[in-house]
Amino acid sequence: MADVKILDIQDNIDSHIDWQSLMDKEVELTGMVQNIRLPKWGAFIILRLANYNIQTVVENGKINIEPSTIPVEATIRVKGTVRPSQIKDLAICPRDIEIAVTNIEILSTPSLPALPLDTTKKDIEAGLDTKFNLRPLTLRHPKQRAIFKISATIFNEFGNFLTKNGFTRICSPKIVFSGAEGGANIFKLEYFDRNAYLAQSPQFYKQMMVGAFGRVFETGPVFRAEKHDTSRHLNEYVSMDIEMALQGGYEELIQVETNALKYIFDKVASDCANEVELLGIEMPVIDKIYTFRFNDIKQIIFDKYKKDFRGEKDLCPEEEALISKYVKDTYNSDLVFITHYPTVKRPFYAMPDPANPEETLSFDCLFRGLEITTGGERLYKYDDYVANMQKRGMNVDLFESYLQTFKYGMPPHGGLGIGLERVTAQLCGLANVKEASLFPRDINRLEP
Amino acid sequence: MADVKILDIQDNIDSHIDWQSLMDKEVELTGMVQNIRLPKWGAFIILRLANYNIQTVVENGKINIEPSTIPVEATIRVKGTVRPSQIKDLAICPRDIEIAVTNIEILSTPSLPALPLDTTKKDIEAGLDTKFNLRPLTLRHPKQRAIFKISATIFNEFGNFLTKNGFTRICSPKIVFSGAEGGANIFKLEYFDRNAYLAQSPQFYKQMMVGAFGRVFETGPVFRAEKHDTSRHLNEYVSMDIEMALQGGYEELIQVETNALKYIFDKVASDCANEVELLGIEMPVIDKIYTFRFNDIKQIIFDKYKKDFRGEKDLCPEEEALISKYVKDTYNSDLVFITHYPTVKRPFYAMPDPANPEETLSFDCLFRGLEITTGGERLYKYDDYVANMQKRGMNVDLFESYLQTFKYGMPPHGGLGIGLERVTAQLCGLANVKEASLFPRDINRLEP
Repeated sequence: MADVKILDIQDNIDSHIDWQSLMDKEVELTGMVQNIRLPKWGAFIILRLANYNIQTVVENGKINIEPSTIPVEATIRVKGTVRPSQIKDLAICPRDIEIAVTNIEILSTPSLPALPLDTTKKDIEAGLDTKFNLRPLTLRHPKQRAIFKISATIFNEFGNFLTKNGFTRICSPKIVFSGAEGGANIFKLEYFDRNAYLAQSPQFYKQMMVGAFGRVFETGPVFRAEKHDTSRHLNEYVSMDIEMALQGGYEELIQVETNALKYIFDKVASDCANEVELLGIEMPVIDKIYTFRFNDIKQIIFDKYKKDFRGEKDLCPEEEALISKYVKDTYNSDLVFITHYPTVKRPFYAMPDPANPEETLSFDCLFRGLEITTGGERLYKYDDYVANMQKRGMNVDLFESYLQTFKYGMPPHGGLGIGLERVTAQLCGLANVKEASLFPRDINRLEP
Repeated sequence: MADVKILDIQDNIDSHIDWQSLMDKEVELTGMVQNIRLPKWGAFIILRLANYNIQTVVENGKINIEPSTIPVEATIRVKGTVRPSQIKDLAICPRDIEIAVTNIEILSTPSLPALPLDTTKKDIEAGLDTKFNLRPLTLRHPKQRAIFKISATIFNEFGNFLTKNGFTRICSPKIVFSGAEGGANIFKLEYFDRNAYLAQSPQFYKQMMVGAFGRVFETGPVFRAEKHDTSRHLNEYVSMDIEMALQGGYEELIQVETNALKYIFDKVASDCANEVELLGIEMPVIDKIYTFRFNDIKQIIFDKYKKDFRGEKDLCPEEEALISKYVKDTYNSDLVFITHYPTVKRPFYAMPDPANPEETLSFDCLFRGLEITTGGERLYKYDDYVANMQKRGMNVDLFESYLQTFKYGMPPHGGLGIGLERVTAQLCGLANVKEASLFPRDINRLEP
C-alpha cells in the first residue's frame, strides 16, 4: 500500500555521552547560544545543551559564519572536533574537552537582540519579582537551571526508591468534594452545577489506598489557599506523599523517610554532580536518625539559648532554626525529627499516644532549619474516627465515602508528606522556597 | 543528652523476595485477609501483601486461633514455614510456594462482617457505578488492583525512559491565569480576589521550558470541563507530556513516543508479569512505526470498509476503531500514527505544513482503536505566533507572559501528550477509560 509510511525505530538518544571516547572525532551538536566571547583570534561559543553548557571554539576564517554576528539565544547546529581542554568555569561541563568548530548552521534567531536580564554573569542580578516575571528566561542561567535539575532528580528518585521498596504509586484526584483537613485554606471551584474544591493533600485517598495496596506513594500538586506571602509558603506545591501499613509504629515512618532522603541525596550527589558543584552545595551526611519529643526539645532550646517557646503548641520558624542549629552543633546532623506533637494541633485522623492522649504519635522533620515533613500514625478503627470527629464537632456524614473504608477493615498505618520545593530549597541553600518552584503561585502571583 | 532518641537507619525493605531461597525457612508476614477457604482439615488463608496475594495454610489444632473466626479483611501477622506448592489460581503469586502457618496474631478487624461486594470471586460482579462508589473496597480485588499496578509502572517508566534520554522533569502549575487552548472546557476557580483556571494541559509551560532545558517532560493531572460523559473521557486525568527541541521534524516525536512506549511495555511485561497474566493481556509487539496521512487513511477506510468519513475534519471513534483494525489486520501493529491533521482542527501553536498550510505537521497516535496521543511541531517564531493568533481573532495581549519566551529565541520544537488512563485502559482491555482512573471524575461523579 503506497499510503503508509513506515519509520524505523531509532535507538534511544542517551544523554550520558562519554566525551573522552570521542576525542579527535567529529561531532554534531544542536543547542542554544548561552554566551559568546570574542578574543582577537576568534570566538568561544558556549552552547546550551539539554544537560549542560559545552564550550565550542571558533578560529577566525575557519568557518562559514562570522561568529560576532551570531546572537546570544540563537539555536545553532555546530560541527566540530572534540579536543582536550582545561576549563575553569563551573557553569561549563564537561571541562576537560571542548569542540573545535568546523561548521555552524543557524536554525533559529531571537526577534529581540538581548535577553531582558543577563544570563551570562556568574549570578542573575535581579530581584525575586523580576526573576519570576521572566522565569522562562531566568531559567536560561546555569545556576537557575541547576536548581530544577536537582528538583527533578529528587522527584524521580523519590519514586524509584519507593517503587523498589514495594510501594505502589497512586494518582489521587485533585478536584475533591470536600477538604481533607477542613478549614478555610481551601480553593473553591465551579464543578458544572455544583461546588468542588482543590485537594489540600492526598490524605484521604492515600489512607484509603493502604487498605488495597499496603504501601502507597504519590508525587503531585497540592493546593493551599493560605493568605500569607512568606519565604516558606507556596499556594501550590508538589507534595511527595507516603502512606503505609505499619508493623511497629511511627518510628518505621521516620526510618522510611530517612532511607528515602539518603537514597535521594546519594542520587543527587552522583547524577547532579556538576549542579552540586556549581551551586556550592554541601551534601548532608545521614548516618543516624535524631529524634526529640516536642516538649523535650522546647526545654533544651530554653536551657541552651534562653528562648522560651515552651508555652506554644507548635514550632515557630525561629524555633525550627534554633533546633536545627542545636542538632547540627551537637550531633553534626542536618536532619532532625520532632515527635509527639500536641493533639490539639494535629488533625482528627492523628493517632493519640495511648500513654498520653494529649500528645500524638506524630512527627515533623526539620532539614537545615525548615520543616519539610509532617507525618504520623493514623487512627484506623471506624469507631475511633466517629468518636474523634464528634469530639471535634465535625459532621461525620460529610465524610461518609472516606469513612466507609474503615468500616470494612484497615491495617494500623501511617504516613507523611514531604514538600518538594522545601527539600530542594534547603538542599540548594535558597532563602525563599519560591525559588524552588518553576512557576510559583502566591497571593500576589498567578503569572506566568 | 538524655532527651534525644537515636534510631538506626534500617536496611531498605526490598519487596522482591526470592521465595525459593527461603524454602523450609521460617518467615513472618503481615497482610490483610483476602479470602479464607475452610476444607475439613484446616484452612487456606489468602493473605494480601503489598505486591501480591500469598497462600498460607493452617492445619486444624496447629495454631492458637480457630481460623474460621478470622474475618476476611482483618489485618493479621502470620508466622510460618515456606514450603513448595502448586497453585493454579492466577490471583495468587508466587504459585510455587505456600506458607505452613505456625502462629497468627490479629492486628485489626473490620467493624462490619463482610465487604459490600465480593472480592473473592474471579471477577467483581457489579456495575461501574457500584465499583466507583466503593472504589477503596473494589480495589481489594486482585484484578482491579492489577490495573493500577500496571498504571503505576507506566507512569514510573515513562519518567525513567525520558530521564535516561536527557529530558528534565518539570512540574508546571495547575492553577493558571488563562487556558492554554482557550474555549469553554475550562474549570474556573476563585483565586483570592480574582479568577483563575485549572490547567487543561501543561502546553504553554512545557514549550517555555524547551528554551531552558531543551527536552522536558511532565506527568501530572490535567483538567477538562467537558460536559459529555463517555467511555473515552475523564474530566481529570493524568497527562504524560513531552516537549523537545527538534533536529529534524515531527517524525522525531513519533520515534521518541514509540521508543518510550516500547520501553514502558517491556517493563510492564517484566515487572508486572503476574498482573499481565491475571488480566490476560496480550502485550503489543512494536517493531516498526506505521504512519498514514490524515486524508490518505480516510480514503483507505472508504475503499476497504465503504465507510465515508472523508468530509470530516477529525476522526470519530468508529473511524479510529476501523483504522486500528485495518492496521492490525494488514501490518499486525497495535499502534498507528495519523499525521497531517487539518489546520482548522489544531490549536494556534500548531506548525502548518509549509507544503500545504491547510495541514499541520502534527499527529495522533491510536492504540488498539483509541487515540492516546496528540502531538506535533509548534510554531517557534514570535512573529508567526502573533500573525496566527490575530488570524484566529485571539487577543495577543492576554498571552504576553507566554509569548515573551518566543521573542527572545526558541529552537524549532514540538511535543505530545499521552493520556495515562487511556494507555492503561487499552493495554488492560478495559471498555471504559474510567476504569483506569483510581477515583474517576466526570460530570456526574465527584466522589469518593
